[in-house]
Amino acid sequence: MEPKGDNIDRPLHPAGFMTCETGSNEGLPGCGSIDFTVAVVLPAGGSGERTGLLTPKQFCKFLNRPLISYTIQAFERVAWIENIVVVVAKDNLDLMVNIVQQFGHKKVTVVLGGSTRHRSIFKGLQAFQGRGDESPLTKPKVVIIHDAVRPFVEEDFLLKIAVAAREQGASGAIRPLVSTVIATTSEGYLDHSLERVKYRASEMPQGFMYDIIYQAYVQCSEADFEFGTECLHLALQYCGTNAKLIEGPSTLWKVTYKRDLFAAESIIKETLSQAACVVTGVCAESTQLAHALQKRLGALDMQVDIISTLLRSTGKFISKSWNFIHVTVSNSCLEDVQELVRTFEESGHAVLYPVVLILVQLDVSEQSSASERMAMLGAIRDVATEARRRNILLYGILLNHVQGAEKWQEAVENLSQITAALIKERNPALTGQLLWV
Amino acid sequence: MEPKGDNIDRPLHPAGFMTCETGSNEGLPGCGSIDFTVAVVLPAGGSGERTGLLTPKQFCKFLNRPLISYTIQAFERVAWIENIVVVVAKDNLDLMVNIVQQFGHKKVTVVLGGSTRHRSIFKGLQAFQGRGDESPLTKPKVVIIHDAVRPFVEEDFLLKIAVAAREQGASGAIRPLVSTVIATTSEGYLDHSLERVKYRASEMPQGFMYDIIYQAYVQCSEADFEFGTECLHLALQYCGTNAKLIEGPSTLWKVTYKRDLFAAESIIKETLSQAACVVTGVCAESTQLAHALQKRLGALDMQVDIISTLLRSTGKFISKSWNFIHVTVSNSCLEDVQELVRTFEESGHAVLYPVVLILVQLDVSEQSSASERMAMLGAIRDVATEARRRNILLYGILLNHVQGAEKWQEAVENLSQITAALIKERNPALTGQLLWV
Repeated sequence: MEPKGDNIDRPLHPAGFMTCETGSNEGLPGCGSIDFTVAVVLPAGGSGERTGLLTPKQFCKFLNRPLISYTIQAFERVAWIENIVVVVAKDNLDLMVNIVQQFGHKKVTVVLGGSTRHRSIFKGLQAFQGRGDESPLTKPKVVIIHDAVRPFVEEDFLLKIAVAAREQGASGAIRPLVSTVIATTSEGYLDHSLERVKYRASEMPQGFMYDIIYQAYVQCSEADFEFGTECLHLALQYCGTNAKLIEGPSTLWKVTYKRDLFAAESIIKETLSQAACVVTGVCAESTQLAHALQKRLGALDMQVDIISTLLRSTGKFISKSWNFIHVTVSNSCLEDVQELVRTFEESGHAVLYPVVLILVQLDVSEQSSASERMAMLGAIRDVATEARRRNILLYGILLNHVQGAEKWQEAVENLSQITAALIKERNPALTGQLLWV
Repeated sequence: MEPKGDNIDRPLHPAGFMTCETGSNEGLPGCGSIDFTVAVVLPAGGSGERTGLLTPKQFCKFLNRPLISYTIQAFERVAWIENIVVVVAKDNLDLMVNIVQQFGHKKVTVVLGGSTRHRSIFKGLQAFQGRGDESPLTKPKVVIIHDAVRPFVEEDFLLKIAVAAREQGASGAIRPLVSTVIATTSEGYLDHSLERVKYRASEMPQGFMYDIIYQAYVQCSEADFEFGTECLHLALQYCGTNAKLIEGPSTLWKVTYKRDLFAAESIIKETLSQAACVVTGVCAESTQLAHALQKRLGALDMQVDIISTLLRSTGKFISKSWNFIHVTVSNSCLEDVQELVRTFEESGHAVLYPVVLILVQLDVSEQSSASERMAMLGAIRDVATEARRRNILLYGILLNHVQGAEKWQEAVENLSQITAALIKERNPALTGQLLWV
């Protein structure tokens, strides 16, 4: 994608977005003010006709993970959110339970939905009443309702919604209208167009005092359950609560069409590609090459850390990056790589996102013999096949130490281009290949 | 992207969408009814703040081509559209002129825009009045106004818009609302929400009798020029023309945010990957492998043609596909590949989209020596460097003819996966590599 620039659709805090650990409240404006309990209801019963796909879009996968798991992760990493109730249709119950297990979601309770969105949300709210439930969830002070197909919601905005809901009884995200909204005559002609500035698109998340939204659903009519679309409207109609409307960031966008699935995949790939970690060992040539790579990849918007070894590191780097470049001059590096793969496996780091591991072998000797290279290729392939099963993508690059500063510059540039391409695309089909610079 | 399914955001007629030749009207419903002149005005003066990019989004590139060139192509391929007036800001005039030259756009006239969207559209319309213009364009009966950032508009819908404009004086595309639209109080609280069913989003393209929209602009006020957003509204207000509203396909979506640029790139890559052409030569093993590939790639939604040679073919296949797989058992295949590169260059086929050319060498002998392979790698790389300058992406794959039906099946499956990955990603950084199966 050219040219480079800020991606305002992407979560503003990639580190937070990417971490698989529960986030902290540090440095969040007014975060201390969360002195009440907050839970989330995530209706995921939609059938997703509009994507033109066979699978409901919340269950469509990219990078081996269904969309809804990314959305769950967005809430799970927020320390002050206690429970996430995911409401699914009967047909998807087992699928959803498996997703929760496979991706290690800890705060999730899966419940069965109703025939419409509003019925499903009500079922989700009832989960906190413990009706016919052996282990009822504790009733929260504030409940946030969100869409399963808006994976990029961030902690700072959730905080605004929760605090406003606590203060006003209800709150909702709004966005400016992208298109002009027009009223049509019954014959299909233009009647009039609305003044854009006076209207907003109502988006998710929305926040409510639990008792308010629960009471609204208890009182609302069959027609509301059947045809209603707007929770804020129910809170107003049945509890007289005027929701506080908060302008949200564009990251709140909703995955509606298949093109949105493409976009979500690209955004996540780009975010995963923001940082890499180069492991050099102790050898001088490796370290020199690492610094050259750091410079080049920096120019491609990739922030690169250089360390001598991961194995003896605290795991700080492992949890920080999803991309590792192992630079070596020895031929015996494959043991190290196998060791790394084991380390990643034990850390559980590759459960949420595929980890890219690039083995760069610097050939400082006179060109090593062709048969030596063949041997290396074979070896890499065996390790790669194993690693791929663990969601670790291993690629090999062989770099000849060419003579002449200019040629060397060019070689390093090519190496950077190939490295960046492998990291950005994370393509399993190319793992185990030995590329050449 | 999983799972497979129809992509309703992608143009419904990829062949039409992809062809670089001017389309024909054959088989288009009521297309004979175009017995009047049609021109297009494409305002492209936007600054594109919302993408968060430095470059206005209509000039952002993917696959080496700016977005606006894709949009121009969507109109240029329509035989019954005579002229396309592109209106740009002063700063982008040279850039736009270069784009028209580089991508060989034949029907385009570039004119200077005004300070607002409406002023720019008016300037575009004035181009047909020949004011201060040595070579005025002939005034069309109907003018279609579109956004430079909606690249996927299709001939059949343009036809509906043009015909309705001819009959009703004005016509416009509408889409259902994706979000609920709400009115807010001055204090930022919910006032009321609109009934979704009664309203539509007004999209582009819109069509007008030229004289109607031109007169509307002649009469409209400074306030309209400054703050107006809706051309249909001007036609109604100043000429009493009620536009006919036509429900458009989701392919009309507007590139608004950076995520939309990602989506557009993915859609075009996917569309380019729908068909491939396998060139076998005369040898039996190649033909056998080609048929196995055809089967496997078919399972990956890629339609594969098999031919013995491109060079002696009429060019029918060259204009049909952007992906070519040259299967060979000989080591002397590189001459053929160089010949192919020349053929593509002469055909001008790679001007609009990068052509992928994959050389698959089937190693039927006892494993050829490592040094032979090194030699092949070097050779491929030299050709690839040349080809890449011509927007032709050359990759090599070496396939060992392993013994045993099961192992062979597996090898062919891997070959298909790698081939599909190279075609889908079209990554220049990996050209000249020799991959191994």
